Amino acid sequence: MKPSSGILTIDLSAIQENWRRLNRAVSSANVAAVIKADSYGLGAHRIGPLLAEEGCRSFFVATLYEGLAARKYLPASARVFVLGGSPAGTEDLFVTSNLIPVLFSVDAVRRWQSFVVARQITPACAIKIDTGMTRMGLSLAEFAELCGTPTFAINVQLIMSHLACAEDTEHPLNRLQLTRLASLQATAKKQWPQVEFSLSNSSGIFLGPEWHFDWVRPGAALYGINPTPGKSSPVVPVIRLALPVMQKRELTETATLGYGAEAKLSPPARVLAVAGGYADGLHRILGPRGEGWIGRERVPVIGRISMDITLFDASALTLEAFARVEEIEIINTEQDVNMLSARNTALGYEVLTSLGSRFQRRYLPPKSGEEVAS
Amino acid sequence: MKPSSGILTIDLSAIQENWRRLNRAVSSANVAAVIKADSYGLGAHRIGPLLAEEGCRSFFVATLYEGLAARKYLPASARVFVLGGSPAGTEDLFVTSNLIPVLFSVDAVRRWQSFVVARQITPACAIKIDTGMTRMGLSLAEFAELCGTPTFAINVQLIMSHLACAEDTEHPLNRLQLTRLASLQATAKKQWPQVEFSLSNSSGIFLGPEWHFDWVRPGAALYGINPTPGKSSPVVPVIRLALPVMQKRELTETATLGYGAEAKLSPPARVLAVAGGYADGLHRILGPRGEGWIGRERVPVIGRISMDITLFDASALTLEAFARVEEIEIINTEQDVNMLSARNTALGYEVLTSLGSRFQRRYLPPKSGEEVAS
Repeated sequence: MKPSSGILTIDLSAIQENWRRLNRAVSSANVAAVIKADSYGLGAHRIGPLLAEEGCRSFFVATLYEGLAARKYLPASARVFVLGGSPAGTEDLFVTSNLIPVLFSVDAVRRWQSFVVARQITPACAIKIDTGMTRMGLSLAEFAELCGTPTFAINVQLIMSHLACAEDTEHPLNRLQLTRLASLQATAKKQWPQVEFSLSNSSGIFLGPEWHFDWVRPGAALYGINPTPGKSSPVVPVIRLALPVMQKRELTETATLGYGAEAKLSPPARVLAVAGGYADGLHRILGPRGEGWIGRERVPVIGRISMDITLFDASALTLEAFARVEEIEIINTEQDVNMLSARNTALGYEVLTSLGSRFQRRYLPPKSGEEVAS
Repeated sequence: MKPSSGILTIDLSAIQENWRRLNRAVSSANVAAVIKADSYGLGAHRIGPLLAEEGCRSFFVATLYEGLAARKYLPASARVFVLGGSPAGTEDLFVTSNLIPVLFSVDAVRRWQSFVVARQITPACAIKIDTGMTRMGLSLAEFAELCGTPTFAINVQLIMSHLACAEDTEHPLNRLQLTRLASLQATAKKQWPQVEFSLSNSSGIFLGPEWHFDWVRPGAALYGINPTPGKSSPVVPVIRLALPVMQKRELTETATLGYGAEAKLSPPARVLAVAGGYADGLHRILGPRGEGWIGRERVPVIGRISMDITLFDASALTLEAFARVEEIEIINTEQDVNMLSARNTALGYEVLTSLGSRFQRRYLPPKSGEEVAS
């Protein structure tokens, strides 16, 4: 049976390889995995268990809903941190579901404190500090004030912050954020002797060991996004996207193509219509001057991408190659997520999270223990 | 319990109203509903049954997979056309699932013919003609040649084509496409006396009765997208999108905000972090200079939209309004899908199909029979 929609192939062995490379890159720190937004669109229900098997013990998701899903596919021993915190009224659900809220404001901390005091329990939580991104988190002053409160009695396992400019190794904010987070360590360890610290996302790992603290939290790099833009990637590509050809057309007269009749071709010209359009995120993935690949031949998008169909100008193909073609590759080794994002000034993350839900997901298996023993 | 992700409210009574308005706009033709791409992201499982109840008897989806889903929520009497046709090997599944393939190439027609001849059955199918979009469909010559084949024996219920420039009422292609489709009617009716014709999408309806043929096929207009851009909309808005505030911040010193530290604010300044980011399609929905609404106050996005969080500069709010705010409206009556798409040069369709799957869908009920009797 021929596919009727795009095929997104996700190479679990590549994710495994990236996980191992990132672990080697942080000799003394631990590595947690960010699997929010369904592992950036690649399928957290497959990637989460794989990483747990690789030894990952801490996972980060964005919302309560993602956390509840994660609890179904992750081992009970895995810690699941919910970056969006515990919205009012969800505290009980966090505890019964074994989820750890990341508390990011004084209000959120106070609410959690009231809850645990009322229940006389000490469930784990994390605190997020704003060290310079001005997005989420307690300010240093707010944190200090809380720690000075005699009744402050929540069980904080992790104190974390988030780098704003980690991809730009020369940005002065990187060291400033590091210094600010480090400045809390003495106070925090007095309050919670076991508390751990975390600052770095994928790119932060490559700023150097000082930025690693106790835990690093890669997401993007696990999924093949180069955490060191402008330098060769320390991780390998993970996905391939191919769209099946629905119709082949050899033009017999000059014709306009697609919506708005904006594109025009004259014979000899060959056009391929493939299954996949902007409802599948193709606009965002390909950007304004999109190209696909047929073997080693580059074929440009022609005309406007429509909701479910995209046209490619395959005039450069030989008649034989044209007769043979069954799919056009959109993401492959010639045009990976990093190249697409560099060309479109989107972020690799955005390319991944734009991948449509109609694409059929196919998973290439991870390597077994023996195969990778070398 | 406070929401931890955006709330997308879909007003079923507005879709019902649009359905009725479109029916009034096409006095003699029938109206089919396009519910592909999950009703442009709004939930075909809710919208399909609603329209069936309103009397809709023919539905269009994009893929076999969408067709199989539609069969679960639509009455057995409803016709479900699959625009992507029947990929090789799926023919049996089409027949057993009561789905009608739209055959869009000579190859597809021949394959369907072989199948029905081998099985000695006469399941319904549709044929798509390319009248000028040069995307999918048989050319006029190909269709004429097939009809001239003595063994041509498939059961064609519908012959359809698709307008490329219907939103531009002055475009000469509109009449050319009409003339080309009409030129097939005599030949086709000789072959299949009951066969019906269809050309117009939402915008085509407003080109005039000549373009209506037997069936019109609105999608966009049902979902509130203005089919007559530049003129007042003949349909009403359908959706509202609101994102919950996660954190409020009053700046005490000058700070850079978000990834890349590209934005900067100095006190007095008030910032709101809301749940929702580019993983929810917000980039595509809002475009480069995004704005949200708090009551009647317009608040601009500040800093880069991140994956799960967006910051808004709420400095214009009074302290009282700032203390009170619980959500920011992204799509409402002040900023509807048509305005967003006009400002971002995206299409309204693209805005709808970019709406993230993490948003909680809430449906406002349709009007009951009595209420709308007037």
